[in-house]
Amino acid sequence: MTDFSRPAFPADVLDRLRRIVGATHVETDPIDIAPHLEERRGLWHGATPAVVSPGTTAEVAAVLALADARGLKIVPQGGNTGLVGGQTPSPVGDEIVLSLTRLDRIREVDPASDTMTVEAGVTLARAQEAAAAVDRLFPLSLASEGSCTIGGNLATNAGGTAVIAHGNARDLVLGIEVVLADGRVLNGLGKLRKDNTGYDLKHLFIGSEGTLGIITAAVLKLVPRPAAIGTAFVATPSPATAVALLGRAKAAFGQGLTGFELMPRFGLDLVLKHLPGARDPIAGRHDWYVLLEVAAMTADGLDERLEAFLEAALSDGEIEDGVIAGSLDQRAALWRMREGMSDVQSLEGGSIKHDVSVPIAAVPEVIEQGIAAARTVVPDIRPVPFGHLGDGNIHFNFTQPVGADKAAYLARWGEVNRAVHAVVVAHGGSVSAEHGIGVLKRELLTEVKDPTALAVMRALKATLDPKGLLNPGKVL
Amino acid sequence: MTDFSRPAFPADVLDRLRRIVGATHVETDPIDIAPHLEERRGLWHGATPAVVSPGTTAEVAAVLALADARGLKIVPQGGNTGLVGGQTPSPVGDEIVLSLTRLDRIREVDPASDTMTVEAGVTLARAQEAAAAVDRLFPLSLASEGSCTIGGNLATNAGGTAVIAHGNARDLVLGIEVVLADGRVLNGLGKLRKDNTGYDLKHLFIGSEGTLGIITAAVLKLVPRPAAIGTAFVATPSPATAVALLGRAKAAFGQGLTGFELMPRFGLDLVLKHLPGARDPIAGRHDWYVLLEVAAMTADGLDERLEAFLEAALSDGEIEDGVIAGSLDQRAALWRMREGMSDVQSLEGGSIKHDVSVPIAAVPEVIEQGIAAARTVVPDIRPVPFGHLGDGNIHFNFTQPVGADKAAYLARWGEVNRAVHAVVVAHGGSVSAEHGIGVLKRELLTEVKDPTALAVMRALKATLDPKGLLNPGKVL
Repeated sequence: MTDFSRPAFPADVLDRLRRIVGATHVETDPIDIAPHLEERRGLWHGATPAVVSPGTTAEVAAVLALADARGLKIVPQGGNTGLVGGQTPSPVGDEIVLSLTRLDRIREVDPASDTMTVEAGVTLARAQEAAAAVDRLFPLSLASEGSCTIGGNLATNAGGTAVIAHGNARDLVLGIEVVLADGRVLNGLGKLRKDNTGYDLKHLFIGSEGTLGIITAAVLKLVPRPAAIGTAFVATPSPATAVALLGRAKAAFGQGLTGFELMPRFGLDLVLKHLPGARDPIAGRHDWYVLLEVAAMTADGLDERLEAFLEAALSDGEIEDGVIAGSLDQRAALWRMREGMSDVQSLEGGSIKHDVSVPIAAVPEVIEQGIAAARTVVPDIRPVPFGHLGDGNIHFNFTQPVGADKAAYLARWGEVNRAVHAVVVAHGGSVSAEHGIGVLKRELLTEVKDPTALAVMRALKATLDPKGLLNPGKVL
Repeated sequence: MTDFSRPAFPADVLDRLRRIVGATHVETDPIDIAPHLEERRGLWHGATPAVVSPGTTAEVAAVLALADARGLKIVPQGGNTGLVGGQTPSPVGDEIVLSLTRLDRIREVDPASDTMTVEAGVTLARAQEAAAAVDRLFPLSLASEGSCTIGGNLATNAGGTAVIAHGNARDLVLGIEVVLADGRVLNGLGKLRKDNTGYDLKHLFIGSEGTLGIITAAVLKLVPRPAAIGTAFVATPSPATAVALLGRAKAAFGQGLTGFELMPRFGLDLVLKHLPGARDPIAGRHDWYVLLEVAAMTADGLDERLEAFLEAALSDGEIEDGVIAGSLDQRAALWRMREGMSDVQSLEGGSIKHDVSVPIAAVPEVIEQGIAAARTVVPDIRPVPFGHLGDGNIHFNFTQPVGADKAAYLARWGEVNRAVHAVVVAHGGSVSAEHGIGVLKRELLTEVKDPTALAVMRALKATLDPKGLLNPGKVL
């Protein structure tokens, strides 16, 4: 699969790479490089002449300068947890994988300024722990936080469950250090809350999936750690009542509302069936559920406020029943229902996935029309629309019909996608809310994106990476 | 001053402009155009062959397409409240002023999605009122909110007093509509909280001061209106104790801390001397003061929490005395002390100004060293460092010595700037926290900005405005 004789990679290139990062950090053995060539679900498989792991920003710069001089294509990679193939090299085998995992220093934690400066290869979990060690919160929270890295989080502008209160990854960044396509280092590691000295370059690189430059370090914002967290799991009649409940929760808790996740009964059924030890939090069957969480800087009265909130929602018909977590263990059990909802779908057969967002008010209509649209393609398809209702982001997944042939079902992926995405686009929605474009949605992007926006994106790519060496074939 | 015979403006250009926007919306009479040629302090004065006021995005696009075809330079202007000359045409008189004030429609208010879609010429105050009308808050808040416009707020990424809780202007935007230099319209008016379909273009145009494109409309984020606000005015021994108090306030109120403004005694003296009806909120003289504000979604207990917070700070020596506003009138009186602090300086003689930000922990040292540095230039200079301590943004102003000659004092502007900015840059700070670059700080930008960042900015300008027609000579 890996072809070392390819003329694009003369031996001296590997020698030069070894001189830059050290011989042990240029891996070419198929066994060593295999974990870098495949993402965890096996949807994409690539090839590479070498996995190069620089240990410093200067080494990244030297690698990119060499790549620029010799026309080498570079695929940056962090924790290899991306879901759209953005971190996987092309199967052609002419792209070097640049692993950033050795850039793993926490350069500084500054609680007085509420900032933390970390390198790209620091895992999200380590960044969270470093914040907690100084009694602060780094609020980005994803299912893959144990292995995904800050560099990847920023390259893809990761979302997750805390967006409703704290925004996407880009909103948690004060500054970044970036190595440009020709090896120049853009030092933007400011710790400033306000800085209007020229164009905001950091937001251009954040979310560009490694196609405009390589993020090597970042200054992250820290926020106060809440003194109390209240977690409730409630049954609600419909997505419309869930949206009404969301409005009520915002009015009651404001920015203290830190989580609002929607789940359909069928998704809960899959969790109860496939997740060991899972138990239904609420007696009886209900059509929809919401996991909501609130945080406060004082424990005083939060439980009482949450109870009063739920009682009012109950009497107005927005919820049918509900429980409040009485301990950390109970809280973890409730979140496990939500966090397990993605993985269990693969145990029930084929799953056709969408990661969409729409204006919050449009969510009920989009769920209803999206299900109807998918059923025109596969009549007995089983919808599992779930996720971050608080920011309008629904993981609009569909499990195969009972007894269907998995491969035959998955062969309809494109058709189902088109049907569902048409509904989403008609409501002013996005076909990639938080997972990015990668290779999975590159063609789709040209169909749904404003043509002028696409033209500007192409112009920016040509300006910042004129030779097209950074993560080729991704996004554009 | 205005030269209609200039060959760059043949009569047919004015005729074409009249055909696009209507004859009454192309102003050439010196009396009509005078208000557009000077900013309110009279620091910059420009000239123009015409002030053109389109009424729709399509008209803006047609004007820019004509400008592109004919090589016409365009200076966009909103409420003309900018402080760095960014909205003033060059004195040469070859730049058309494009006034966006007729684009003043509130296209939609969507409380269920917590969004509002407004055109560039809507004043900030009108946007705030439209949000309040649906029981929401649009949190951007500036001294000039009665006349500044949303387009200008976004073009300059305005800051203000609510940044500590809600971020800068860019953080309050979900989508924008932009007319590019060649007249193409980039439609990015999405109402989405999450959208990872390609590069984030909005942040490139926001804060670019009209040099990359003309923002014609925006989707703004709305937040819940707080049910209760607590406002305290306290005396604190030093900037260091003020920073400690800030840390305590964040820990106590988290994201409920919505304002934290630092003021020196001399600034208060100027307000008491020059602002009619101003009264010292606190008995006795203290070296420093902080105006802090907290908000909550329930009135229950906020006053008690604020009192307990102040008592603890008092016993730990972070404050010496303090008052809590007991009514809306008292709250307004306290804010008037802070908001009046800028204007009163001009009544005390010459004032040399800086709009800097530094990491919050560095503020005390920067104030001390900045004052010392300024005194090496003008020994009896009277410092008035005040402003948004909560986000590290200090308006580091200096009033002339008692009895000094104003003109002679202001002639030292550059020297004092250099001395103070050197201290700021040494602490990783910004020389323009919220006012932007405009023409005032264009030369300064080349001295303090990372050279690679500057090179990238120039490349982006060349890509998006290859003929250099949009707000020429501003920023770069």
